[in-house]
Amino acid sequence: MTQHNHQTAPTQFVEANGIRFAYRRFGNTAGVPLVFNQHFTGTMDHWDPAVTDGFAKDREVILFNNAGVSSSSGEVPTRIEKMGTHAVAFIKALKLTKVDVLGFSIGGFVAQEIAIQAPDLVKRLVLVGTGPRGGEGMATLTPEAQEIFGATYDEPDHLWLRVHFTKSETSQAAGREFLKRFRLRAENRDPEVNEKVAPAQIEAIREWGAPRWDALDYLREIFHPTLVINGSHDVIVYTANSLILQRNLPNAELILYPDSNHGSQYQYPALFVADATRFLDANVPFPIQKD
Amino acid sequence: MTQHNHQTAPTQFVEANGIRFAYRRFGNTAGVPLVFNQHFTGTMDHWDPAVTDGFAKDREVILFNNAGVSSSSGEVPTRIEKMGTHAVAFIKALKLTKVDVLGFSIGGFVAQEIAIQAPDLVKRLVLVGTGPRGGEGMATLTPEAQEIFGATYDEPDHLWLRVHFTKSETSQAAGREFLKRFRLRAENRDPEVNEKVAPAQIEAIREWGAPRWDALDYLREIFHPTLVINGSHDVIVYTANSLILQRNLPNAELILYPDSNHGSQYQYPALFVADATRFLDANVPFPIQKD
Repeated sequence: MTQHNHQTAPTQFVEANGIRFAYRRFGNTAGVPLVFNQHFTGTMDHWDPAVTDGFAKDREVILFNNAGVSSSSGEVPTRIEKMGTHAVAFIKALKLTKVDVLGFSIGGFVAQEIAIQAPDLVKRLVLVGTGPRGGEGMATLTPEAQEIFGATYDEPDHLWLRVHFTKSETSQAAGREFLKRFRLRAENRDPEVNEKVAPAQIEAIREWGAPRWDALDYLREIFHPTLVINGSHDVIVYTANSLILQRNLPNAELILYPDSNHGSQYQYPALFVADATRFLDANVPFPIQKD
Repeated sequence: MTQHNHQTAPTQFVEANGIRFAYRRFGNTAGVPLVFNQHFTGTMDHWDPAVTDGFAKDREVILFNNAGVSSSSGEVPTRIEKMGTHAVAFIKALKLTKVDVLGFSIGGFVAQEIAIQAPDLVKRLVLVGTGPRGGEGMATLTPEAQEIFGATYDEPDHLWLRVHFTKSETSQAAGREFLKRFRLRAENRDPEVNEKVAPAQIEAIREWGAPRWDALDYLREIFHPTLVINGSHDVIVYTANSLILQRNLPNAELILYPDSNHGSQYQYPALFVADATRFLDANVPFPIQKD
């Protein structure tokens, strides 16, 4: 067990593929580390400590910024495949030979790429608020996402109340708690991303999300046990895409939480950590059978 | 704890609404009993002992035949509402004031009716392989269901290999295990249903499943914490209907299991019992939060 947690873990650096990757690692060093892949324009500071520290009780948590994002050097690639290649290089640069991979939103696209490009490196996948290649409403930002990311807010952080939470009172209240938690880390925060990140990521999302007749074929080649999780009403990556993932992956379970949007894992952090931990810890290959 | 289990529980009878209801109860008498509502043409013997005995470790399990089915007297109503009314009368006749309700397939329609007609009687709902009023492909038996129920089989039980399981080798192997389990009860089995049951149930299914513009409104009035569970490829009540349930119920979680058809709970009985038990046992109202 390391001494560090989400608030205190120092930002470290490792070189690979010509990129100087910023990362933080903390938590229980027993077992397989869990590598987190972040959402659109997010940095390591956009993860919820209730989630990362929750996982860190049982496993090592590894956060990082992919190429061109915040404290990592390089350029944001305009292809998800390239982001996946970078992520694989980063993981290997840490001398890791087997990891669990969690991806949220665009980070979920990257997680799938990691599994495709380096199948032996990956034990299990947790895909949160994400979708497949050529999914529903994924050829561009959804109309809702365009409105939400285009609007101005009293406080910039309030953007996330609309991205991650529904309009219900309960969900918004959970959102305000989330915002407090993700500001808890006071020192050595990541710099905000520069102005080149969003356009490059949008181009990558568009290419990944463009419909094609054979878009889903690749899913049948991802044999890793996979847990797909989303909110009931995700307007950023439509919930239907979680269904499409579960239906086409050979070995996936789906969980949808009630009254929740893109960030259901931040609305129900304890439930999410418990569900994903049970999945990651099961001895036998998924589907988990106790008898 | 009663001495009995799925194999040994005697069939008992109770009168209500002019019907002599056949039922069996067994399991841990601490806590809230769980009342099971059966699928199309099924009797108490069509439940999987791995599921019923699994639940019985922690709660009392109550199986029954609704009006006109097998060992219960009366006629099968041609309306789901009426089946719900009978079920409520049966539960009250046992002097129960609070129960959890599990419904599978048409039994899931009845479970929803129980929650609507007697909201205070119900603590939580488990809806398995089922759908809402006016759901997708529910205005009649699906083409797949018509073919499967219309075919002939070397052994009549083999029907259930096609109803409950997918065509994959793994799923069919699980199906053969299921068939062994559900024949374990050797004595005092229910008689098969008579020839009037299927037509009356089909008429009720058609009326319940007929599309109407306001079909889903009633779901917003079911505030009971609800766990919706199904297989990834349910061809009897299409998996999409589980989505529709979860999306429109105010307080529901969805779980879909991989490579599974209508009877995913029989393919993964230990996983299903564990998931549903966790949901039923959570102290705080759903969504379950541990912190």
